[in-house]
Amino acid sequence: MKRLVLIRILSLLLGIVSLSMLPSLALALREGNPLVIKAFGYPIAAFVILAVLAAVFGRKIPIRLNGRDGFLIVALSWALSSFLGAMPFVLSGVLPSLADGVFEAASGFTTTGASVFTELEKLPRSILLWRSMTHWLGGMGIVVLTVALLPLLGVGGFQLLKAETPGPEKDKVAPKITATAKILWLFYIGFTVIQIILLMFGGMDWFDATNHAFATMATGGFSTKNASVGYYKSAYIEIVITIFMVIAGANFSLYYRLLQGKISDLWYNSELRAYLLIFFGFSAAVALSMLATYHDFGTAFRYSAFQVASILTTTGFMSTDFDQWNSMAKALILITMFIGGCAGSTGGGIKVVRIVVLLKQTANEIRRLLHPRGVFSIRLNGKVGRRDVVYGTAGFVALYIALIFFVMLVVASSGADLITSLTGSLATVGNIGPGFNAVGPAQNYSAFPDYVKWVFSFGMIAGRLELWTIFILFTRAFWRK
Amino acid sequence: MKRLVLIRILSLLLGIVSLSMLPSLALALREGNPLVIKAFGYPIAAFVILAVLAAVFGRKIPIRLNGRDGFLIVALSWALSSFLGAMPFVLSGVLPSLADGVFEAASGFTTTGASVFTELEKLPRSILLWRSMTHWLGGMGIVVLTVALLPLLGVGGFQLLKAETPGPEKDKVAPKITATAKILWLFYIGFTVIQIILLMFGGMDWFDATNHAFATMATGGFSTKNASVGYYKSAYIEIVITIFMVIAGANFSLYYRLLQGKISDLWYNSELRAYLLIFFGFSAAVALSMLATYHDFGTAFRYSAFQVASILTTTGFMSTDFDQWNSMAKALILITMFIGGCAGSTGGGIKVVRIVVLLKQTANEIRRLLHPRGVFSIRLNGKVGRRDVVYGTAGFVALYIALIFFVMLVVASSGADLITSLTGSLATVGNIGPGFNAVGPAQNYSAFPDYVKWVFSFGMIAGRLELWTIFILFTRAFWRK
Repeated sequence: MKRLVLIRILSLLLGIVSLSMLPSLALALREGNPLVIKAFGYPIAAFVILAVLAAVFGRKIPIRLNGRDGFLIVALSWALSSFLGAMPFVLSGVLPSLADGVFEAASGFTTTGASVFTELEKLPRSILLWRSMTHWLGGMGIVVLTVALLPLLGVGGFQLLKAETPGPEKDKVAPKITATAKILWLFYIGFTVIQIILLMFGGMDWFDATNHAFATMATGGFSTKNASVGYYKSAYIEIVITIFMVIAGANFSLYYRLLQGKISDLWYNSELRAYLLIFFGFSAAVALSMLATYHDFGTAFRYSAFQVASILTTTGFMSTDFDQWNSMAKALILITMFIGGCAGSTGGGIKVVRIVVLLKQTANEIRRLLHPRGVFSIRLNGKVGRRDVVYGTAGFVALYIALIFFVMLVVASSGADLITSLTGSLATVGNIGPGFNAVGPAQNYSAFPDYVKWVFSFGMIAGRLELWTIFILFTRAFWRK
Repeated sequence: MKRLVLIRILSLLLGIVSLSMLPSLALALREGNPLVIKAFGYPIAAFVILAVLAAVFGRKIPIRLNGRDGFLIVALSWALSSFLGAMPFVLSGVLPSLADGVFEAASGFTTTGASVFTELEKLPRSILLWRSMTHWLGGMGIVVLTVALLPLLGVGGFQLLKAETPGPEKDKVAPKITATAKILWLFYIGFTVIQIILLMFGGMDWFDATNHAFATMATGGFSTKNASVGYYKSAYIEIVITIFMVIAGANFSLYYRLLQGKISDLWYNSELRAYLLIFFGFSAAVALSMLATYHDFGTAFRYSAFQVASILTTTGFMSTDFDQWNSMAKALILITMFIGGCAGSTGGGIKVVRIVVLLKQTANEIRRLLHPRGVFSIRLNGKVGRRDVVYGTAGFVALYIALIFFVMLVVASSGADLITSLTGSLATVGNIGPGFNAVGPAQNYSAFPDYVKWVFSFGMIAGRLELWTIFILFTRAFWRK
């Protein structure tokens, strides 16, 4: 019974994902390559039929779900979407290996942006658009997931909206999620449209502008050019993308607050302040360390702000080969790989708010040493935070680092050097995309053996879904009746 | 008034440290080099006179100290000892630069074992003995500090003995510390003597045996040979040192328990179990990954167990140039650099117990997601731990990683590559000694500019003193009356 409900929901979801291949199918029909047309046509046909069947035969199944089903649905959504999303790559022959296809699609849906393609400029536009579309859909999914859905499952707990959904009142939850989702999606779509227009002003054609806007708002990082954003050699385009990366890496519920006129909420938001401080601080530090290369601070800041925003928000665009930068700049970039975007954004990584909580806890420990009988709590957004916020953060960061080390070992077992192994792990689990050395800006992920690519795909999905959603499935208690 | 008490205590301490130069002075007199004789003789004379003056004129000053004075005394003890310990190096001319001398002495007293000497075998034996002596004294200091003194200041809180010193009952504290210190020192001295004898059985002369036993029990790592323990090419010596490194990296209060016949305390000690599991697990994994190089598992395990014990316990001896190992083995070693020895041992690093607490907290988070209304606590040593154990651990690890990143940036600013910067930071703050690349087993720390060496010295002392002891001095609240 329960299994049927899951099948019904996932069938509908896959039907929607397959429908999002329609724009690519349209491009493929214009291109006229029958293999590519089939690569999009077959999955669309198959999964739309599946969804219709599920809708027709499943309409009498009452949807009653508990928290455990929620975890399973979320995990399977991203996993199955990655397999479905791989089909156009595999069927068209641009990525004949299933491991490659799933890697590329998982990298898309998780908004990672790591790629196994070696020659982007030779790919059909329909395929390029599909890559960007997986980003955009994945970003859309993650905003709703982290702002509206995961807090209901007890994951996260940093979202501002959480206070508005107290307790598991089942009747009110569904309409509330729907209403929240609609508002967030309007922002998401609105920002995307504005960015497309701004990029076209900068000289991009509609196709490149759309692809890059999709990849920016999702903090994904798939480009249509081998040299990524560096291809355009345009300060204007870099600045536009920098600004929109920073927008995409901030908590989307704050834009909702802004719309409600609650501007002070933004000012007092601890995470936003820390996020902007990190962005400007690291950009300035990287710029200073690169003065010898770029001669004036303005030029240095243009490149450094772009790259810091790109890695911090976990987008992964490149405006230059930053693996050629000096050690100091690379060390700063390496540190931002451990931070990530804001909670409730499309950015991945550990998230700024968790760093804020941990550093505040450090300060509290020092206060406790000076005043052994005092009681100190964490203040977030001007209010005293719940006491368990440190527990959740400590558990998350420990699991995150354990996963980073696990993936690093798997990569190292294939013979990759330490920097490649470490930053490859950070760049996939953190949904960033590029790292250093063999996974650096001028490289790609094609050379790894298949088992490493499968583990990368797993790492990307686990990192994207805030770890718990995936790791809870590996416990015996989850599967006990 | 208070300042006079501090001066009196620190003068006495420096007098004791200078007296520990006497064996080196005796060797220097036999060697007959007047420069080296003066290098030991002058500091001894000066600081013994200082101590006598402090004892005579200070005997009427009543010793009333609070927690803040405790932090200051501990921090100044290691800092001033490093300057005093540098004198023989600087005055004898073997390390003319003050930055080098202080680095080497700080590395000794913090039981790090990172060295700026390029040619150990050309050094006078008196100088070599002094290096090992700084290790041995530092290890002695740290055992008493972490088991008996720091818990009184509120730092740490994992020690078994803490339960026996409830609250700040000032009358009972001093005799209790003295009694505890005596017992722990007996173990420390006992293990050292046994190891010297065992090493001499393996063919070492008394001088090398003493130096290596000092460096082992302190988890220090200074050797008398450029090739470190690898010089002896003796499986017996490697096995003896491996066993004593593992002994030195475990909580010394457990040996006290063992003496009391409380063997079950050892069996149920969460940290000891995790520590041995990590040691054997990582040794086996490294051995398996190196089978192609060493052909049979026995030989591979001999090298891997030695190196895992050396890095995990933060000793830093080498039996081979492990920087030449394959990526998998190096990645495993890199992970052990993040762990460290047990609390209450002479080992440094984050400490096994903190890793245990964080991983248990991760498991609790998953339980909480499955049972949102449950209350879950951390069990340590078969008992429910205090709730604030996670707070302290989270704060410590956050500060530790922040310090690692800070030191890494300083190293990178000198142009060192990323792996050198990262592992150099881990190896100094974690009191390990060697890292990879330019700070690898076949290298040393001499090539860095002075400002990097000063920051390394700071990192070694901060890491050695559980961070808080140093960082509390940087807060305004500490200096407020």
